Amino acid sequence: MYYLIIDLLGVVSFAISGVLAALQKRLDIFGVFIIAFVTAVGGGTIRDILIGIEPVTWLQDNIYMYTIIVTVIFALIFKEKLKYLRTSLFLFDTIGIGLYTLVGVEKGMVAELSAVMCIALGTITACFGGVVRDILCNDIPVIFHREIYATACVAGATSYFLMRLLPVPDDVVFIISVVIVITIRLLAVKFKLALPSIYGKNEQ
Amino acid sequence: MYYLIIDLLGVVSFAISGVLAALQKRLDIFGVFIIAFVTAVGGGTIRDILIGIEPVTWLQDNIYMYTIIVTVIFALIFKEKLKYLRTSLFLFDTIGIGLYTLVGVEKGMVAELSAVMCIALGTITACFGGVVRDILCNDIPVIFHREIYATACVAGATSYFLMRLLPVPDDVVFIISVVIVITIRLLAVKFKLALPSIYGKNEQ
Amino acid sequence: MYYLIIDLLGVVSFAISGVLAALQKRLDIFGVFIIAFVTAVGGGTIRDILIGIEPVTWLQDNIYMYTIIVTVIFALIFKEKLKYLRTSLFLFDTIGIGLYTLVGVEKGMVAELSAVMCIALGTITACFGGVVRDILCNDIPVIFHREIYATACVAGATSYFLMRLLPVPDDVVFIISVVIVITIRLLAVKFKLALPSIYGKNEQ
Repeated sequence: MYYLIIDLLGVVSFAISGVLAALQKRLDIFGVFIIAFVTAVGGGTIRDILIGIEPVTWLQDNIYMYTIIVTVIFALIFKEKLKYLRTSLFLFDTIGIGLYTLVGVEKGMVAELSAVMCIALGTITACFGGVVRDILCNDIPVIFHREIYATACVAGATSYFLMRLLPVPDDVVFIISVVIVITIRLLAVKFKLALPSIYGKNEQ
Repeated sequence: MYYLIIDLLGVVSFAISGVLAALQKRLDIFGVFIIAFVTAVGGGTIRDILIGIEPVTWLQDNIYMYTIIVTVIFALIFKEKLKYLRTSLFLFDTIGIGLYTLVGVEKGMVAELSAVMCIALGTITACFGGVVRDILCNDIPVIFHREIYATACVAGATSYFLMRLLPVPDDVVFIISVVIVITIRLLAVKFKLALPSIYGKNEQ
Repeated sequence: MYYLIIDLLGVVSFAISGVLAALQKRLDIFGVFIIAFVTAVGGGTIRDILIGIEPVTWLQDNIYMYTIIVTVIFALIFKEKLKYLRTSLFLFDTIGIGLYTLVGVEKGMVAELSAVMCIALGTITACFGGVVRDILCNDIPVIFHREIYATACVAGATSYFLMRLLPVPDDVVFIISVVIVITIRLLAVKFKLALPSIYGKNEQ
């Protein structure tokens, strides 16, 4: 129950970020809903398909669809106010990627994949909803040229496997790993950290 | 047999719409064929993958591939004439989405998914071939900012489940639902109906 | 072993082509890695999903991930030199599509699909990594409007099935088919062959 609530918080947060992206593209209501939907469930869907979990998760429980419908309706009603909510949205989004990363890691472990592949699946779960959103909106995916984002997911997922070598209960390892993702992401934004550029000064 | 003929009519119609889109992008013949192919089978492929029907439908029967090859050849030979066929094409396309919607719904039911998810799968079957076409052509998918299209699919798929509560034979319910999709789409285009804009006048 | 080495040569070559594409888009290091990754494994991933081979191949063996990581690091270190390596890269890429085509064909045969579908899967394996790369980079996929590329894959895959009708050992058929893909591609580039345009002179 606790788990489902946080999971749906992630869905809500990503759905709102999808609505914000769609509003900038002047889509109709159906387009806005689709963008919100793929942003919220896209990463998990790609993960499920790569592993072979089918029907994919959101097809198996209507709660995801209903949550997204309600979120989109609220987001459209209060769209004027959303700009004042950027900080809260950023926090939701950050909590979302933290949790989604570890959910992806654990799904990989259930499928008995290697640690490296579990880390990859966690990162895909957290990040690729946004990638699909950007592709549908005809943008270059923002995670490819933005401050530390996927990197936080990789770091949190990696620390999960390192901590499991220690005598720490699994639940605690899970929670600490989520916190690591969130902390790295928050610090990166606060201190404007970014991955090193691969260009020299002259080229830019 | 009757079923297969209508199914292939949908394939033909969507393939032609793919050829028309590709011609505007000045692709070579192979590019035109690929765009036609994904437009015709893309929606059903995404549906199959989400449900877990694998190999996907078009891999299991060469008739889809052959139909698309023949259609593309004809479309390229008669491409000068295609502009005069817009009305016929629109009718084929409309019949196509009507049928594809209900095909998708029934595939979802065979997989024992909920009514809401069957409606979603029907809409995906009908609409996402066009979405993939537009992404490959580097456009924002047209269904996201066009008059009633996906909405007609949702309405027809929903009415299918409502009618099944009545003592009506399944075949009749299927046909009436297809007609509902087609009718809504025709009326929307005839009367230039569109989904309500989510922008105020000033913003546009 | 021999097989794996050539397979990884293909991965290396496609990964480098992904790095080159990403560099032009000014992505950060993570973005460059993702583009390299999808270019190298994207075609095989789509093939696996369509057939239903899940978990997909690269999830089952870390060697793909490690090879791509090392390749990207080398490519970024020596990126100034890469422009002088265009000929070598072109040769690697050409060997890559030759091998990937036949790998795809054989995966289709293991799944007991028809010859036409095996040819399609071979072509998808060889070409769709580049398609996904171009979509993520927000370009129209280059294979849709470039000289003979996918056509070489189709020709090689088709000759594979024709030669199997003759009393020739399977390994020899495999190798000759790879050589056919490579030869057609090399000749096409050397003599600047292209698929016939579907436009009249005046339209261009």
